[in-house]
Amino acid sequence: MECLHLRRRAVVALPSWTADVVRGFRGPTDDAGFMELAIALSRENVARGTGGPFGAVVVERDTGRIVSVGVNRVVPLRNSSLHAEVVALMLAQAAIGSYTLDDPGVPPHTLYTSCEPCAMCLGAIWWSGVQRVVCGATREDAQAAGFDEGPVFADSYRYLEDRGVEFVHGLKREAAREALMSYVERDGKVYNG
Amino acid sequence: MECLHLRRRAVVALPSWTADVVRGFRGPTDDAGFMELAIALSRENVARGTGGPFGAVVVERDTGRIVSVGVNRVVPLRNSSLHAEVVALMLAQAAIGSYTLDDPGVPPHTLYTSCEPCAMCLGAIWWSGVQRVVCGATREDAQAAGFDEGPVFADSYRYLEDRGVEFVHGLKREAAREALMSYVERDGKVYNG
Repeated sequence: MECLHLRRRAVVALPSWTADVVRGFRGPTDDAGFMELAIALSRENVARGTGGPFGAVVVERDTGRIVSVGVNRVVPLRNSSLHAEVVALMLAQAAIGSYTLDDPGVPPHTLYTSCEPCAMCLGAIWWSGVQRVVCGATREDAQAAGFDEGPVFADSYRYLEDRGVEFVHGLKREAAREALMSYVERDGKVYNG
Repeated sequence: MECLHLRRRAVVALPSWTADVVRGFRGPTDDAGFMELAIALSRENVARGTGGPFGAVVVERDTGRIVSVGVNRVVPLRNSSLHAEVVALMLAQAAIGSYTLDDPGVPPHTLYTSCEPCAMCLGAIWWSGVQRVVCGATREDAQAAGFDEGPVFADSYRYLEDRGVEFVHGLKREAAREALMSYVERDGKVYNG
């Protein structure tokens, strides 16, 4: 049977330029500032050709400390699960050394995402233990750029909200939408659109 | 600002024993056989203490070739997204060298999972390009073992089915359920239950 040499590893990696973008961040360390950073990451990811037009940032809610960032890595890393939110949440958990951001003794976190989460990312948000999610562009904006969001319903958000996850929608939507559209203008690959 | 040393990498890795389990697989190379393999992986993952009670296998639908396997790695790798299905799909895409199993020129694939997918995994299934999904234990079985499945609704399945993904439910449910319960009996960690 042809099954002896199965792969056992895959790597989740940010492009090296993301460190410079984070290093260059001058605030403000509030919702508007962190959303600007998420959008800057999405825009730069398109400009550098390192993935789709999505960026995310995980921040300690009360201190404003940046814990991790993520950008979409689907096409370059050949991995359809590497949306910006999943990447940022994985790296945040690696940074704090726990499979949940809701660990006792760990301060609460906020996820900033340049676009409302797809079905997979909404599930990943739920498992991650992140307590607050701030979104830029909307599902409709993503769809206008050719990206499907999958089976996300009003009840999907309600499920998480009923269990204590807070959502903010449409912060800096116009700037976030422009970053999405810059990808379309460059004829970026819309996977599974 | 304390944001200079962000992590840029995370690793998705199977335990080494998975290779032996796959090597020991003697078939049959049909739905029942591959579901047995997924359940064996879930059971062994509990026995070895390498993660939660979930296993998955990706197979070329028409040839029965095993492309990848996955087991739950959430607690050991401190990463709440590493459910068995996500791991198997990531490794399948790594194996074929594409971000979609629905690439032209790539044969159709089936995902076998020892338990019905949670909200995140259902989204990941949609993006992965896998054409067929065979499930063992049900959402209710997972819940009885203390695992929440998140915001998955009848409409969530319908969304994927309407777009051509075929689902089979409850194959070898009893054996799959027993593997889940073996985790509870060992006082395994139920994350975000």
